Order: sequence, then structure tokens, then C-alpha cells
Amino acid sequence: MKKTLDGINLLYPTPTTIVGAKVEGRHNFITIAHIGIVNHAKPFLISLSMGKPHYTNAGIKENKAFSVNIPSEDMVVATDYVGLVSGKKKDKSDVFEIFYGQLESAPMISECPINMECTLYDVYDTPTHDLFIGEIVETYAEESVLVDGRVDLSRVKPLLFDMSSVQYWSIGQTVARCWNVGKKMKQK
Amino acid sequence: MKKTLDGINLLYPTPTTIVGAKVEGRHNFITIAHIGIVNHAKPFLISLSMGKPHYTNAGIKENKAFSVNIPSEDMVVATDYVGLVSGKKKDKSDVFEIFYGQLESAPMISECPINMECTLYDVYDTPTHDLFIGEIVETYAEESVLVDGRVDLSRVKPLLFDMSSVQYWSIGQTVARCWNVGKKMKQK
Repeated sequence: MKKTLDGINLLYPTPTTIVGAKVEGRHNFITIAHIGIVNHAKPFLISLSMGKPHYTNAGIKENKAFSVNIPSEDMVVATDYVGLVSGKKKDKSDVFEIFYGQLESAPMISECPINMECTLYDVYDTPTHDLFIGEIVETYAEESVLVDGRVDLSRVKPLLFDMSSVQYWSIGQTVARCWNVGKKMKQK
Repeated sequence: MKKTLDGINLLYPTPTTIVGAKVEGRHNFITIAHIGIVNHAKPFLISLSMGKPHYTNAGIKENKAFSVNIPSEDMVVATDYVGLVSGKKKDKSDVFEIFYGQLESAPMISECPINMECTLYDVYDTPTHDLFIGEIVETYAEESVLVDGRVDLSRVKPLLFDMSSVQYWSIGQTVARCWNVGKKMKQK
């Protein structure tokens, strides 16, 4: 039996990210899980939906760059913290250890096992949010999360965001191989 | 030690969805995990990134409606199957049991614990993909996945898509409460 839920969004869980940017000349970080994958080929485009009042938005628009960092479970306190406190009120520049890649205004977080540095490709305007579309210029992964050169999510231990329960969830086990397990049905 | 990975997208895992649409008058279904959350307020906007050659794209553009259905782990074979076989070559209209809500051209999948029916709000054009932005008009959830009226992901058992391992993953356990666990740091 189905129940209707008044048109709410249930497209979860999504990977929790920490977005890094320069705002008024200072490093700033904000937790964002309303992400998107926009173009899966060069240029690799990803999106971040960020409420218009956020402090970080102006910095991304001004410097046309940002980073997307994927924290591990053991970073849950700091990850949640930078989503609780606005950069307008609190200097968050010393919460993480920072490194830079190719872009001047995309500070990345050393502790995060995965980092993507992005130039601002476009801003898609919506009624209440800026949808920042970033082009990934370089991707970094901690060696300890790689197996044969590929990321192993069981080593990354990402924080999966769910708005229904308002909880971060861990990742479980592998279930089946994509573009493969369905072949069983194809043969019927 | 960080390794560079040539700017690939590592924004995973994402929830695997089955998109329903009418194409040439027939129900069609396709697996899409390159999703996005675009506007988190009314209008609730979500996105699907779909390679331009896909059969379904023309149907969504013509009828300006589609559904986003979230399958459970136990549907992994059929979920993968509708992503393996193109509607151009194979009639996929009978793979699932279908129901309709408010929209004529947004067939939904009864077996999926969560369904969102969407009108086409916009198409954001990228070099190789159509980014379909849908406005959710109604959301349906199977009563068995609700606890106190809210979705419990441990009951949904979504299939989490990961391009690095090319595997579907299960969801694990709750880690901590969002907008809450970070307060420990705030008090410092």
C-alpha cells in the first residue's frame, strides 16, 4: 500500500561533501550533500545546490573556483560542525589542514580521502538556491583508499546524508556488479 | 600521500533510480544514478543526467513528464537489466507492475518502495548529456518502509551506485545525527 507524502524529495542518500572556497580572502568550508552529477564525460561537471543566503556563495561567484572534499566517517564531528556554523559569524579557516592544487581559490582538505578541485562552469538559478556547476580540473585520492588505482568505498567510508531520518549513514557491502547482474534477465 | 586521478568524477555513491517515461506511446524504464538535488524547497527540483543518445530522452522532452523510482536491493537484477537494454531494441514495458498518479506520462513502478512523479521543469544542455530537471508533483512511499510517517532507509534498502568499483552497494548503519553531532565542536 502506497502513501502520498506531499511531493517531498526522497532522492537519498547522497554523499556528504565539504565544499571549500575563498570568501573575502579567507578559506571557508561548508557541508553540502545536495549534490549532482551533470555531465559524465569531459568536461566532467558536478553540481552543488546551495541556499542563496549562504556566505560561501559570493566567494564562489567572485573567484569562480571551489573544491569538493569527501570526508570519512571519522571526520563526522568536524563535517557536521562546518555545516552548523556560518562563515559570516565564525572563522572556519583553521578547522582543517589545507592544500592547494592548480587553482588559487580552491582550498582542499588534507584529511579528506578524496578531493576534487573545480572551476565554476555555470550557475543555474533556481527560486531559492544557486546551483553551482563545477568543472573538475583535478581529482586527488589518498593512496590508502586506492586498490589497483581505483577508489575502494569501503576504505573511504563516506558519510551518506539522508534528510528523512536527518542522519548520516555508513556504506554497507557490495551487492552486485553494475551492467552485469541484469544479464541474467537478458538471457530469458 | 595523495595521488592525482586525471580529473575523474568521484562523487559517489549515489542512489540508483529507475526512470519511467512514455516513449512513442509505450512505457519505458531506464536505470539512472547520475542524479542531483537542485532546489530544496517548493518547487522541489531534482535532476537526471542522461546521455543524449538514450531512447528515453525524446519521450521526456515530448511529454514533459517522468517518474523517479527507487528500487530495493531485492530488485537488483531487474534494475540492472533496464540499464543494459535500450528501449530502441527491446520493449521493457512489462518488466515492472505500473501505476499512475496525477500525470498521464509518468508511469511509476509498484514494486519500488519510493516513487516521485515529476513534470519537466527545464532541460539544461551539456556537451554530451541532457540534464533533465524535474519538479516533483507527488511522492509515494510503501507503508512498510515508513516509521512514524518518515522513510527509514534501512527498510528501503536502496542500491547505491559507485562508478569506481562498478558495483551496487548496500546502505550500512546510522553514524550520527545531522546538524547535531557537530555541536560538540561548537562548544569548544
